Amino acid sequence: MPKVTLKKLAKILGISPATVSKALKNYPDINENTKKRVLELAKSLNYQPNSLAQGLRNNESKIIGLVIPEIVHHFFSNIISGVIKAAEKKGYLIIILQSNESYEQEKSHLKKLMDKNVDGILLSLSDTTTEYKHIKQVIDRGIPIVMYDKISKLISASKVIIDDQKAAFNATQYLIDTGCRKIAHIRGDLKPQTTIDRFIGYKKALAKNNIEFDASLVYNCKGLTFNEGYKIAKKIINDHKDVDGVFAFTDLVATGVLKRFRELDIHVPNQVSVMGFSDWFLTKITTPTLSTVHQPGYEMGQEAFEVLYRDICTLKKGLKIIPEIIEIPTYIVPRNSTKKLPKISK
Amino acid sequence: MPKVTLKKLAKILGISPATVSKALKNYPDINENTKKRVLELAKSLNYQPNSLAQGLRNNESKIIGLVIPEIVHHFFSNIISGVIKAAEKKGYLIIILQSNESYEQEKSHLKKLMDKNVDGILLSLSDTTTEYKHIKQVIDRGIPIVMYDKISKLISASKVIIDDQKAAFNATQYLIDTGCRKIAHIRGDLKPQTTIDRFIGYKKALAKNNIEFDASLVYNCKGLTFNEGYKIAKKIINDHKDVDGVFAFTDLVATGVLKRFRELDIHVPNQVSVMGFSDWFLTKITTPTLSTVHQPGYEMGQEAFEVLYRDICTLKKGLKIIPEIIEIPTYIVPRNSTKKLPKISK
Repeated sequence: MPKVTLKKLAKILGISPATVSKALKNYPDINENTKKRVLELAKSLNYQPNSLAQGLRNNESKIIGLVIPEIVHHFFSNIISGVIKAAEKKGYLIIILQSNESYEQEKSHLKKLMDKNVDGILLSLSDTTTEYKHIKQVIDRGIPIVMYDKISKLISASKVIIDDQKAAFNATQYLIDTGCRKIAHIRGDLKPQTTIDRFIGYKKALAKNNIEFDASLVYNCKGLTFNEGYKIAKKIINDHKDVDGVFAFTDLVATGVLKRFRELDIHVPNQVSVMGFSDWFLTKITTPTLSTVHQPGYEMGQEAFEVLYRDICTLKKGLKIIPEIIEIPTYIVPRNSTKKLPKISK
Repeated sequence: MPKVTLKKLAKILGISPATVSKALKNYPDINENTKKRVLELAKSLNYQPNSLAQGLRNNESKIIGLVIPEIVHHFFSNIISGVIKAAEKKGYLIIILQSNESYEQEKSHLKKLMDKNVDGILLSLSDTTTEYKHIKQVIDRGIPIVMYDKISKLISASKVIIDDQKAAFNATQYLIDTGCRKIAHIRGDLKPQTTIDRFIGYKKALAKNNIEFDASLVYNCKGLTFNEGYKIAKKIINDHKDVDGVFAFTDLVATGVLKRFRELDIHVPNQVSVMGFSDWFLTKITTPTLSTVHQPGYEMGQEAFEVLYRDICTLKKGLKIIPEIIEIPTYIVPRNSTKKLPKISK
């Protein structure tokens, strides 16, 4: 059965669509009998007013856009869940788009969301985005953007982030506190800020503990994969027989390291401690379980929506948005791939 | 800056919105000079026509709804990815909603999607849905629904499924072919059809191989969790010392079994073989790696959109939808938690 429209009701009743519309809204200038006929027909055909049209009238769509670099990623799945939960409470729906880490796709997605008249957009930058004109254009059109996780300092917008530098500092400090002195770092590509920040955090922790930085202990990861970790683990051991800690920038890579170490009969954590980053579910099931940094995806998603909602309301009142930067705290989750912290005597 | 609307352009130029609209569409009855003024202003204010309004005119929103039971689930993340990929090619956007396995939420989500005038809906039933009036209402309003994964035979709509019975039959047969004779089955709740079908598949494989069905070898899982598998593994061994195979209805539970078996010094696969279901990423990193049934989420998502698109086009032509049932093939992924198949001599 095709959709029942206002026009259709009008045609059946032999009256104008305007009259039908007024009748449905109980306007006083419409004859009671006409009202009755309209309501009865509307009911029997299961007519429901088109809220797209209603949204149009007050210039609100009650839809927001959510641009995600990659959906099949535990962290981002959690973000989606958090956004949906928070948005639902305020009656917003979410259009979700995946950039696949491509600048071109990100650009085209923002355009599509503008065309759909969304009330606001949540955006995590793709790794290949280095220009921001497409983002500024959206903001200039009066559609607020909140950036989350992968952000740029060059955009004036609200942002929800974690402090990657601090988190990586704490992870490295934890390895040092449990007795590690020669710690390798597996870092990601040179580009995204999160990777750079985690590397800086690692270096700062070494410096604070008077451990000399050794560039040969830093390994570049081509992809964010289990296999990369598996390959690099062997290299680390070949290059540095006396390494006693590995801090990987993401859990998946750390998991590959664990596997290879087991095959090479390197005991974790007695010979080498391993620390990941993100707290994916899989860290609980590896052998041994993986110590890691908890990256709060769900909370980040919720918070990102809350900020966007505040920005939408600000604009609606005709006020100027004053960008907020919100930092979600991270914490270390100690498991069995690192040694116990020494007890502090009181 | 607030959004630039047609009305605003009209106000600035001192002409009617209708004239602005016609000028933008290059109507012949509009003075050339007026057209030039309108276009210049539109360009300088970065005006973009509102495609919500455009969608309204031809009664299309180019948006579809996607209702998912749970997003933080590898299988469903893959489905989302597949849907987005296919929808993008045809210029559709996706509103995503999570039912959290709640009938009430599912009902309210369908209503919201109707209100938003979506062109179609992809729906996987929540585990608590036993009534289908809310689904029939959507279909009666002329909005096509395609059900995927968790479906009901009582709804006349297109469906994209896997054959859970056949898949479970094959999984059990594989265990038998590799020498197992006393195979425990960990099944899910009594409700969702997928769980029932997997149980039936298990039973049929036993029957086909003249292995007597023993109800005490079937274990009910309260939740779809690692911990449930961990707990049940102990029970299985206590109840049946000579068990030689375990077929779990989902990977996460199988993973818990692997862990407990390792702790109990039960060798997998030499003493007991373990088979999962779904082919989550995590099956590649357990010790030993987990043999499982590949459940093609990405392909299912793509196919579900394709069918929905065909149904949308059928309705647009004023024709009646003839529901299609599409089955996506599954296959066994042998890893290290099962023994090798015996070589067949030729």
